[in-house]
Amino acid sequence: MVSIREVGPRDGLQNEAPVPTDAKVRLLDALSATGVRRIEAVSFVHPRAIPQMADADEVWARARKAGGVRYSALVPNPRGAERALAAGFTELEVVVSASDTHNRRNLNRSTEESLAGLTDLIKMVHEAGATVEVIVATSFGCPYEGDVPPARVAGIVERVLGDGADRIAFGDTTGMATPRRVRELLAAVGQVPLLLHFHDTRGTGLANILTALELGVTEFDASVGGLGGCPYAPGASGNVATEEVVHMLHDMGVDTGIDLEKLLEAAALAEQITGRELPSGVLRAGPRTRLTPQ
Amino acid sequence: MVSIREVGPRDGLQNEAPVPTDAKVRLLDALSATGVRRIEAVSFVHPRAIPQMADADEVWARARKAGGVRYSALVPNPRGAERALAAGFTELEVVVSASDTHNRRNLNRSTEESLAGLTDLIKMVHEAGATVEVIVATSFGCPYEGDVPPARVAGIVERVLGDGADRIAFGDTTGMATPRRVRELLAAVGQVPLLLHFHDTRGTGLANILTALELGVTEFDASVGGLGGCPYAPGASGNVATEEVVHMLHDMGVDTGIDLEKLLEAAALAEQITGRELPSGVLRAGPRTRLTPQ
Repeated sequence: MVSIREVGPRDGLQNEAPVPTDAKVRLLDALSATGVRRIEAVSFVHPRAIPQMADADEVWARARKAGGVRYSALVPNPRGAERALAAGFTELEVVVSASDTHNRRNLNRSTEESLAGLTDLIKMVHEAGATVEVIVATSFGCPYEGDVPPARVAGIVERVLGDGADRIAFGDTTGMATPRRVRELLAAVGQVPLLLHFHDTRGTGLANILTALELGVTEFDASVGGLGGCPYAPGASGNVATEEVVHMLHDMGVDTGIDLEKLLEAAALAEQITGRELPSGVLRAGPRTRLTPQ
Repeated sequence: MVSIREVGPRDGLQNEAPVPTDAKVRLLDALSATGVRRIEAVSFVHPRAIPQMADADEVWARARKAGGVRYSALVPNPRGAERALAAGFTELEVVVSASDTHNRRNLNRSTEESLAGLTDLIKMVHEAGATVEVIVATSFGCPYEGDVPPARVAGIVERVLGDGADRIAFGDTTGMATPRRVRELLAAVGQVPLLLHFHDTRGTGLANILTALELGVTEFDASVGGLGGCPYAPGASGNVATEEVVHMLHDMGVDTGIDLEKLLEAAALAEQITGRELPSGVLRAGPRTRLTPQ
């Protein structure tokens, strides 16, 4: 059994041109009906910073909460955490970059300053009865600095776990992960509660997941239709498409709980909502089991 | 060391809208300068069947033959083999489909009839001092019949090797290969002189190559820029992009002899020649080692 977290509604749509509230609710509801067990639903960020998520409260209020699905929200700071908790979320995510340059570009402070801020945030969220996942961005490489030493990532993991973080995710922020980098990082980090988030920027998305599976990882992010192509970087492809991950896993006999046909309907909806052709091979060509009429 | 055979000039361009002779020669010459050791250059097919290759003789006559590069040609029948031999090729390829339905659709005869015809063709080519590779199409699944039993493919391999075939290639004709199917087929076939030809139709291209590498396969086809998108099947992506394969292999410390920067220049040329955006992530985003200026 592999646990897929569907990140299309948040990470996906946050990196597409803005879509109406209604469309977001429809996509969330469609995904909640696929059998997927985890969905990253929204982020509580400042609307000026990320207009795509300005309606997070309304989206979440209107979405149907399916039994058996764990929903999570991304928060950038204590204010966002308060909003997420007030909205009823019990699983929060925060991001820190392993690369200092990327952290400064993304969050306007050093990695060290971000880490220092996490201590109190984790405490506050725990006191409210919720959990915190720390997403370590640029874990497999930084577009500004290049390779990020696995020992540096391992040091961040140790520190945030010491601060009480409930789970760790490694973000392949700009698609620099490869099977080799996956092996090296997992060896450096050892056994921790871990989820991996890969992009398919350079074709290695599923090869990375295959490598991680062989090393015992059982939790992965994926985005319906490959939503999140980052329209500001033309041609760059983003998150691995959930259909492609599920298609490969099911063929391997690995269960995900997801109904691939329903997922493909959600992917078609995602394409309709964004109005662009999404980079998902299984959405385009159909599953390998779908035959051409003779 | 992994041996990549570049198939863009033949398999790639044969599945794109026709391009001028001059462009084909330029692409071949650019590829010959990348350090790649094998190139599938042209096919000698009937111009009415495949107008894209009508100028094969002229392309080949004008192309610069680089020392250290093995060039091959695809031939559909004895007449094509004669043309290829007359043009000076010493490595010929023939195709037969493991699936009877696909063979009938593609070649208008049964797999058995195709196999029967190979005996004399192999003999004729050997007498001329050249070698024959048998490409078994739909080895990982047929779009009409679905799964193709590995034992059926193994039977074809045994038979053509008995007929004197020098090498075997397995074609993932419509991108139905997955890591599981690669494992199952390789287990059924055992040790033979083998090259694998994958498509990236459903995202598994590099995952399949990774799986085959772990099982000891060292020869793969790939197409510069991912040329060969099959314009007749909109959205369907074709051959794995050579840049993506080389990029992953080099990162793993596996040598290919190929200069990735020169290969990327050839991929940019392929894009210019076809006039369409080719589906190669490494061409779009650059190698992971290419940093964003701060």
